Amino acid sequence: MNITTDVVLDADYLLNRLAELGQVGDDLSEGGRTRIALTNADKAGRDLLCQWMQALGLVVRIDQIGNVIGLLPIASGSINEPLMMGSHIDTVRHAGALDGCYGVVAGLAVIKAYRDAGCLPERPIAVVAFTNEEGVRYQPDMMGSLVYAGGLSVEDALATKGTDGSRLGDELARIGYDGAVKPGQIQPAEYLELHIEQGPILEAEQLQIGVVENLQGISWQKITISGQANHAGTTPMYMRHDAGWVAASIHVFLNRLATESDGRTLATIGSLTLEPNLINVIPRKAILTVDLRDPDELRLQAAEHALKAFLQEIAQTAGVVVETEQLVRFNPVKFDDSLANQIEATTEALGFTYRRMTSGAGHDAQMMARLAPSAMIFVPSKGGVSHNPREHTDAQDLINGANVLLSVVTQRVGAHALIQP
Amino acid sequence: MNITTDVVLDADYLLNRLAELGQVGDDLSEGGRTRIALTNADKAGRDLLCQWMQALGLVVRIDQIGNVIGLLPIASGSINEPLMMGSHIDTVRHAGALDGCYGVVAGLAVIKAYRDAGCLPERPIAVVAFTNEEGVRYQPDMMGSLVYAGGLSVEDALATKGTDGSRLGDELARIGYDGAVKPGQIQPAEYLELHIEQGPILEAEQLQIGVVENLQGISWQKITISGQANHAGTTPMYMRHDAGWVAASIHVFLNRLATESDGRTLATIGSLTLEPNLINVIPRKAILTVDLRDPDELRLQAAEHALKAFLQEIAQTAGVVVETEQLVRFNPVKFDDSLANQIEATTEALGFTYRRMTSGAGHDAQMMARLAPSAMIFVPSKGGVSHNPREHTDAQDLINGANVLLSVVTQRVGAHALIQP
Repeated sequence: MNITTDVVLDADYLLNRLAELGQVGDDLSEGGRTRIALTNADKAGRDLLCQWMQALGLVVRIDQIGNVIGLLPIASGSINEPLMMGSHIDTVRHAGALDGCYGVVAGLAVIKAYRDAGCLPERPIAVVAFTNEEGVRYQPDMMGSLVYAGGLSVEDALATKGTDGSRLGDELARIGYDGAVKPGQIQPAEYLELHIEQGPILEAEQLQIGVVENLQGISWQKITISGQANHAGTTPMYMRHDAGWVAASIHVFLNRLATESDGRTLATIGSLTLEPNLINVIPRKAILTVDLRDPDELRLQAAEHALKAFLQEIAQTAGVVVETEQLVRFNPVKFDDSLANQIEATTEALGFTYRRMTSGAGHDAQMMARLAPSAMIFVPSKGGVSHNPREHTDAQDLINGANVLLSVVTQRVGAHALIQP
Repeated sequence: MNITTDVVLDADYLLNRLAELGQVGDDLSEGGRTRIALTNADKAGRDLLCQWMQALGLVVRIDQIGNVIGLLPIASGSINEPLMMGSHIDTVRHAGALDGCYGVVAGLAVIKAYRDAGCLPERPIAVVAFTNEEGVRYQPDMMGSLVYAGGLSVEDALATKGTDGSRLGDELARIGYDGAVKPGQIQPAEYLELHIEQGPILEAEQLQIGVVENLQGISWQKITISGQANHAGTTPMYMRHDAGWVAASIHVFLNRLATESDGRTLATIGSLTLEPNLINVIPRKAILTVDLRDPDELRLQAAEHALKAFLQEIAQTAGVVVETEQLVRFNPVKFDDSLANQIEATTEALGFTYRRMTSGAGHDAQMMARLAPSAMIFVPSKGGVSHNPREHTDAQDLINGANVLLSVVTQRVGAHALIQP
């Protein structure tokens, strides 16, 4: 057989199933869909996914944290050390239809291509939907893949209390997805995650595919500045201890640091509150958050150190007390070079425009990279918008991405015609 | 008679009445007192004040906006063109006992000194308590003196709607202070306002008296910055339209402008809110207030122009829309030179340490300066704190200030013993 011409993508299968899954948890009042982890809507999405896996004749495994894995065995019946594709199907509130779901459904579409061609791979293929990637109801996010990769024990994960007071393990049992398989027991030979970019770069540069070679490290801090409230009209500038001005100075400092980093460091102050927040009172307190990201750990540390030094200096200058609290810290992840190179070569062979790039957001692939060689493929997001009903990727872009995935898979695990009985 | 030795301050009268008035509207739950304009507590304060005026044998006049004026006639019975002293007795929420009340009660103490000495001035003396100086419930603030000076019509003032939906005129009638006298009908020959500094300068410089020669102009603006919300992890710095960063840049710009002005311009950003105010989302909107003050009108205008130019420039740089709204604009007020000089000479003659200074806050004197030569006398505020239960001035400082006022008054209007019947 000729893999390239015989094992082909069923684009309708991909698009129709994305649309169908997108209707589960449909949010009639505010638009989009809300399918938060381990709710009834999540159960409905999982049920649909399992039904599709069974229709493709896959071996379905549910592990103890609720990760759903569909496996296409090889001719011998082995499911060991599969090539694994996947992502997640839980969502944020009022989400788009593509975040996570695209990678899972495209994985099924790859297997569908094998089924349609009546052939089997020479190594098993798996499709996984990880539990609770979004972390809306239960912290931390990317939990299913974190447990899968051994970064969090099953017991601790199941004991997690939700924002609604519920215990994760109870909710998992309630929806019937408390499986028996030990997470990580199915050891992937490699992991591929196809995903929408959730950022504006591919669209802005009018490119079709992103070859994701790494994923930024993330450092989140909360900074509390305690100054002194005083009358705006009677307090000379030199006698002020203005917590708001210190916050503004931090903002300007970090923005300059990031802007001068040749685009590699990102710095965001997304949240800031002043007290008492009155027009004619110098703020006594400012609470802000800092989001620092860099694909290079040493550079991320350098940014953290530069911030720390700046805080010490400005606290002294302004006569304020500055306290910091680390909220989140993820090291950068470098994806597998040979996988990324193969994605790049395949993209080029298929005639798509592309660039190598860094993932700005967190993904399950960053956890799976601890277990196996991993990489990601991005397709453009219109306006860079995600976590929003307006999230959109053109159908042709979705099909292109799935074709890159299919081609990489067939190159890696081959295909041979089934012996007709 | 010898004015200096015969017409002397009764310090207990001053301090006891300040304490007694301070208990009206006592706020048992949160400390301080709350005597907001035209509430029952304000009525109780006014009633007490009128009672004290009557006990001193003053002619009491209530005008159409509720200003309370007590007049000490001269021997002929005339009350025309008095030397007027005063301030206000309404308060903010959880106020100190001194703001406003000090100037009114000290005025009564000056008259008490004449009564105790059994003498009369050669020109009439008046003490006034202006309605609604604080502007908590009804805008604008300094309303009673504004109407008195002809800056706002009685009709418009009475029609003012309060934050609680009430009409000022109705509330004034309800508490029985809708007088018949036309505001401004009693034309003062000069106006003197003794007040706590409400700022930290006298305390910091360890001075006893502030000779207030002018009052800053005030420019309040609301600035709304509309940028674009985006993912903090996936949006390169050069593609951002970060409303929060623009707000921070304005803050840093204005602070530098003020700091480099040799202490004459003050700039404060007291209030700032971001939307959506999430750690990993670039703010789409920032709303902030700017409080600019300068004792010189041309310099204040220069600061406003510099801000405007900066906003135009940064809006272009950041790709955001910046809208401004003027909330308040008062021109600076220069007090009467000869009055200020006389206060200074008197302060020196009494052996008090002092400085000439600018009032950072607004006061009724700035309105009265439109009608008659006016000036103010400041005493130290501990920690510069006001509008707060912790507002404090040492008793000796309160007595010193009243003695300066008394001495200036006796020099200007003289005193002659009453002919004993």
